[in-house]
Amino acid sequence: MDAEPFRHLIDDLNGTQPPRVWSLLVTVFGELAQAPEAAISGTLLGALTQPIGIKPEAMRVALHRLRKDGWIDNRKTGRTSAHFLTEWGRAQSAAATPLIYATAPLSDAAWVILTDPAKPAGVQQIAGAWISSNTAIVAHPPNDSQTLGARLDPDNPVPDWVSRGVCPSDLATQSRHLAARLTDVQRALAGAEPLTAVQIAALRVLIVHSWRRITLKLPVLPDFVFGPDWQGGPCRALVAALLDSLPKQELSDLERGVTG
Amino acid sequence: MDAEPFRHLIDDLNGTQPPRVWSLLVTVFGELAQAPEAAISGTLLGALTQPIGIKPEAMRVALHRLRKDGWIDNRKTGRTSAHFLTEWGRAQSAAATPLIYATAPLSDAAWVILTDPAKPAGVQQIAGAWISSNTAIVAHPPNDSQTLGARLDPDNPVPDWVSRGVCPSDLATQSRHLAARLTDVQRALAGAEPLTAVQIAALRVLIVHSWRRITLKLPVLPDFVFGPDWQGGPCRALVAALLDSLPKQELSDLERGVTG
Repeated sequence: MDAEPFRHLIDDLNGTQPPRVWSLLVTVFGELAQAPEAAISGTLLGALTQPIGIKPEAMRVALHRLRKDGWIDNRKTGRTSAHFLTEWGRAQSAAATPLIYATAPLSDAAWVILTDPAKPAGVQQIAGAWISSNTAIVAHPPNDSQTLGARLDPDNPVPDWVSRGVCPSDLATQSRHLAARLTDVQRALAGAEPLTAVQIAALRVLIVHSWRRITLKLPVLPDFVFGPDWQGGPCRALVAALLDSLPKQELSDLERGVTG
Repeated sequence: MDAEPFRHLIDDLNGTQPPRVWSLLVTVFGELAQAPEAAISGTLLGALTQPIGIKPEAMRVALHRLRKDGWIDNRKTGRTSAHFLTEWGRAQSAAATPLIYATAPLSDAAWVILTDPAKPAGVQQIAGAWISSNTAIVAHPPNDSQTLGARLDPDNPVPDWVSRGVCPSDLATQSRHLAARLTDVQRALAGAEPLTAVQIAALRVLIVHSWRRITLKLPVLPDFVFGPDWQGGPCRALVAALLDSLPKQELSDLERGVTG
């Protein structure tokens, strides 16, 4: 596909909120270089991010920040650098991967739990979301005898104030917009010119990233507790369908393509 | 049965907390005179309450109070008075009867409901018990879209702070003591001298009243939410068994017995 229509595709996908460069690079490494020995050349990073509208200077700044934060490291190889995830960065990436790439909800049950209001729970760690000082929606029943738990019936819609506590309304709105944008991209790709390997890789990164930006901000809970505005289900299905139609490119092939 | 052993039986049943006279009389009317035209003579009331240890003066004060409160009214018939439930008193009595005489729990399901903590529910009427300002345990799922409801699993014991909110610990303790006392009475009756009709009627009243004093103070909810101290199930079974072994006496027969 020519640079111009590809740029339109990217703009359709980004909408009004282009991603932060350092955050997008985290997705790039998660998508292409999670393997222990994998490294991405500066040349390939440039080839992937330039058509998405990221300037070389912005990429250098972002790489510097990610190195400073301990996400990545680099080594010189001839005239260019090879960038790779640190052990810590790889662990973070591995932990997020199942959440981001899940093709179905990771949880199909939700419980409401209540702790004794006379004994504030403080910042008790839960796999879920607090909706008041002593009430939370969680994916598993409580395992302590002083917490009341009751399973929510998926057939009963939860009240607005509960779903807003689980999923802030701006994220629900973003999911609605993303579902619409992914549908547009799916239509645009249907009759489009063939994409290059780098274009496919860049598009995959951007699709994964657009969903990652929403889903990683939310607790792992079944969709029905997120309220009627939440379009996470359609987003997940569209991401899965798009990634299916845009086969994953081997890092070594991509490197050969940009250096060859 | 002679007056002396009967008095022991009554003491066993009353324990350390003899009932308030006016409240006991409400039970007498509910047990014997709920029918529209039914009336109880002062003579029969005296015959029923005297062996329970209630002095004539205390009974007159209680009858006066019940008349003043609109529970009962009376009419003169010759040298004695006939006392009867007012329309209002009969309605109150009829409403309480299924709760008091139930041989099985009136509710086998419980829901926890949560109202929006940002919008205090105030004194919203519920068939259940508030356990915090926006949380209640109720016998039916909520029917309003802004209230979250989830059914409690009867196999999961509820935390202490929840059962204490539903059933104050002094009532749970009372239920434990009553179950023990009813068991004692059951044993004492097994090998006892036959009772007179008035003794049977008085004992029935006292048995019903001892359970009424506990159960009418509590919400209609399944036993499992009342906590491990609650012995309402055994109380209900013992009351039912005792009433079964002490057949209900006809009011007209009792009146004939005391005037004859």
